[in-house]
Amino acid sequence: MGQTAQKMDVNKEVLAIAERAKRAANALALAPEAAKNKALTEAAKALREHSADILKANQKDAELAKQNGISAAMLDRLLLDQKRIESMAKGLEDIAALPDPVGKVLSSAKRPNGLTISRVSVPIGVIAVIYESRPNVTADAGALCLKSGNTVILRGGSESFHSSQAILRCLQQGVKAAGLPEDAIQSIPTTDREAVGALLKLDKYIDIIVPRGGKGLIRRIMEETRIPVVKHLDGICHTYIHADAKPDMAREITLNAKMRRTGVCGSTETLLIDRAIAKTMLPNIAEALVKAGCELRGDAEARAIFPMKEATAEDWDTEYLDAILSVKVVNGVEEAIAHINTHGSQHTDAIITESTKAAEQFLNGVESAIAVHNASTQFADGGEFGMGAEIGISTGKLHARGPVGVEQLTTYKYKVEGNGQIRPN
Amino acid sequence: MGQTAQKMDVNKEVLAIAERAKRAANALALAPEAAKNKALTEAAKALREHSADILKANQKDAELAKQNGISAAMLDRLLLDQKRIESMAKGLEDIAALPDPVGKVLSSAKRPNGLTISRVSVPIGVIAVIYESRPNVTADAGALCLKSGNTVILRGGSESFHSSQAILRCLQQGVKAAGLPEDAIQSIPTTDREAVGALLKLDKYIDIIVPRGGKGLIRRIMEETRIPVVKHLDGICHTYIHADAKPDMAREITLNAKMRRTGVCGSTETLLIDRAIAKTMLPNIAEALVKAGCELRGDAEARAIFPMKEATAEDWDTEYLDAILSVKVVNGVEEAIAHINTHGSQHTDAIITESTKAAEQFLNGVESAIAVHNASTQFADGGEFGMGAEIGISTGKLHARGPVGVEQLTTYKYKVEGNGQIRPN
Repeated sequence: MGQTAQKMDVNKEVLAIAERAKRAANALALAPEAAKNKALTEAAKALREHSADILKANQKDAELAKQNGISAAMLDRLLLDQKRIESMAKGLEDIAALPDPVGKVLSSAKRPNGLTISRVSVPIGVIAVIYESRPNVTADAGALCLKSGNTVILRGGSESFHSSQAILRCLQQGVKAAGLPEDAIQSIPTTDREAVGALLKLDKYIDIIVPRGGKGLIRRIMEETRIPVVKHLDGICHTYIHADAKPDMAREITLNAKMRRTGVCGSTETLLIDRAIAKTMLPNIAEALVKAGCELRGDAEARAIFPMKEATAEDWDTEYLDAILSVKVVNGVEEAIAHINTHGSQHTDAIITESTKAAEQFLNGVESAIAVHNASTQFADGGEFGMGAEIGISTGKLHARGPVGVEQLTTYKYKVEGNGQIRPN
Repeated sequence: MGQTAQKMDVNKEVLAIAERAKRAANALALAPEAAKNKALTEAAKALREHSADILKANQKDAELAKQNGISAAMLDRLLLDQKRIESMAKGLEDIAALPDPVGKVLSSAKRPNGLTISRVSVPIGVIAVIYESRPNVTADAGALCLKSGNTVILRGGSESFHSSQAILRCLQQGVKAAGLPEDAIQSIPTTDREAVGALLKLDKYIDIIVPRGGKGLIRRIMEETRIPVVKHLDGICHTYIHADAKPDMAREITLNAKMRRTGVCGSTETLLIDRAIAKTMLPNIAEALVKAGCELRGDAEARAIFPMKEATAEDWDTEYLDAILSVKVVNGVEEAIAHINTHGSQHTDAIITESTKAAEQFLNGVESAIAVHNASTQFADGGEFGMGAEIGISTGKLHARGPVGVEQLTTYKYKVEGNGQIRPN
């Protein structure tokens, strides 16, 4: 078969999947809470029952990945064991236990003419989730979309293809057991890269795309599609130590915000410290960071206080995702806000202060999706926000901001109920 | 000056406007409610005081428009008089009287670790409004954006250029009197068509675009920009008469839904009528419509009941915006829903029935932004919804659905308040 013929086949196949997803969306939107929850708990059961098959499929992926010279970090994300499968199953049960986000009356008012106008939460429709090698995203994303009444098209990384297919079969078993449309959770059953391109064109069928993965993947998706993308590109988070900060709290929070996990999007990449207390507080904080294995890169003022590498202009705009922290001395809360709004990524930014006034000014002034007072930026997480689970974190301003949980995967419609009202001129 | 040099100048000018809008957005987001309301009432005062100037500018526009052979309908939309200016001024005062949509705590919860996590409404940022010849949009859109704490870039149609500029000066006078950033409300001070193209590229500065105008304008904008567009392209609205409808109510609502105003997006374009009652109810309804000047286009079954033109396949997908109604006989609520979800535009659709069960099935089953029971589709309007005023109606599923008022022009941020919390592993 020639390449063009093959391409046509992929396009056709992806289109057929999207059409089925759209058709199933109408039925799933009306599915009762109990059925959705049953699908999730049955899927959890299936994951446990078929763990041997899943591990076997994962072994196959791992062998192929090693032959292709995958990095150790990627291999770790790819590998499953009994514990990780149990954690996936538990995740599904946790999502089942969340309140149903669909059908909630968000507001309701009786108009003077007797019309009752209610705003009611409804599913968005069809969600495409495009992710890299972590097979557990298959379970998480599938479950979050199902719980929120959306049908989902999953497209995992080629490295985890067999693992994801095995997990998908368990999800579909759950959906079937609950009597829900089988096309509620589908995946693209090929590793052909063309399939992603085909998917990105189907704005007639797909309502949103959620990419999970590196910046390269997300950028490609944003460039190629007109479908709204729920995502964050960068997590350039800041911790700002105000003049009225408690020194110990400032040190502990900064240490946690940077070093708890350096590879997560909520980790602090830049420390801003007030000129008024830089000399007294910075040495202690910097020492703790260096002791924990962190490399510091400072502006001239910071370097005059504590020995560290020189920060270049580029550093202020860099998400290290590593044990590196840029350090800048600023002159008060306004300069801190201005720096964050210029160099930040509207993700998560924190102020450490005992001053209520400075905290208020900061929380109002930063454009961040999540503005934090006296706590670690690493709390930027759906679980920590009480959402149960998240499909990602959004730094976009429209629809969903911050952690995206089942509630954020819904939209609303108006229901207008009358008894014969017609509109006068 | 060559064309390229001119183009560069327009691009530069539009960029400078957008940069100023973005800078002003931060200040405006923090503006107290009283200042925003003062700006609006002062602007209303200015409109009344400068009504002679506005009418003079409008006269100039009208003369130019007539020279360019503008249609009578467009000329009517362009023309201002004392009454229309008063109505604009009153509109500004009404918007001032609305509750402040900014700074509302949408939800708040204390987490087990002591963190208080609140979701607070904030302005979106910078809004560009691109509209055709109606000069009153300048006042409405400017006021709605200001009230919601957003800065706005207005781009009106060239036919209303002088009128819009005169109105804009009144708005800016209000903004100035209230001590708010003067760049809160700006317009593109040229009729150069290149300016719109330049605006559409500035996704770094502009958060959303609201087009007001015909389908051609909206399509062009959608094709040329990556900025989210809050819009509806079509208003293919349906009224479905269920078997359990009261005949008089069905007739009165259908007549109003189609004929109250045929040119608005909420007017019904297709009548679906149940087979069970078509023979008894359709003649009466059809007669009333024809008497009111409406042309009917029916499927074979409808034509067998009442003489009318034959509807072609195209009719079901057509927004007439005119005194024309397509009529189809359907077999029950499921077929009605299926027709609407296939041919509708997810705008506003109504069922007329005394059956609670059928109404519920319909309201849940149609994908419409506004689902109506026993009332006219012409209620699709922000004012009728109690929003005070609307900048438009959205049929998109994300962020804003249905009428877009000041609340829909906000987004939210999370405020996380702690007392030293760090995140454990």
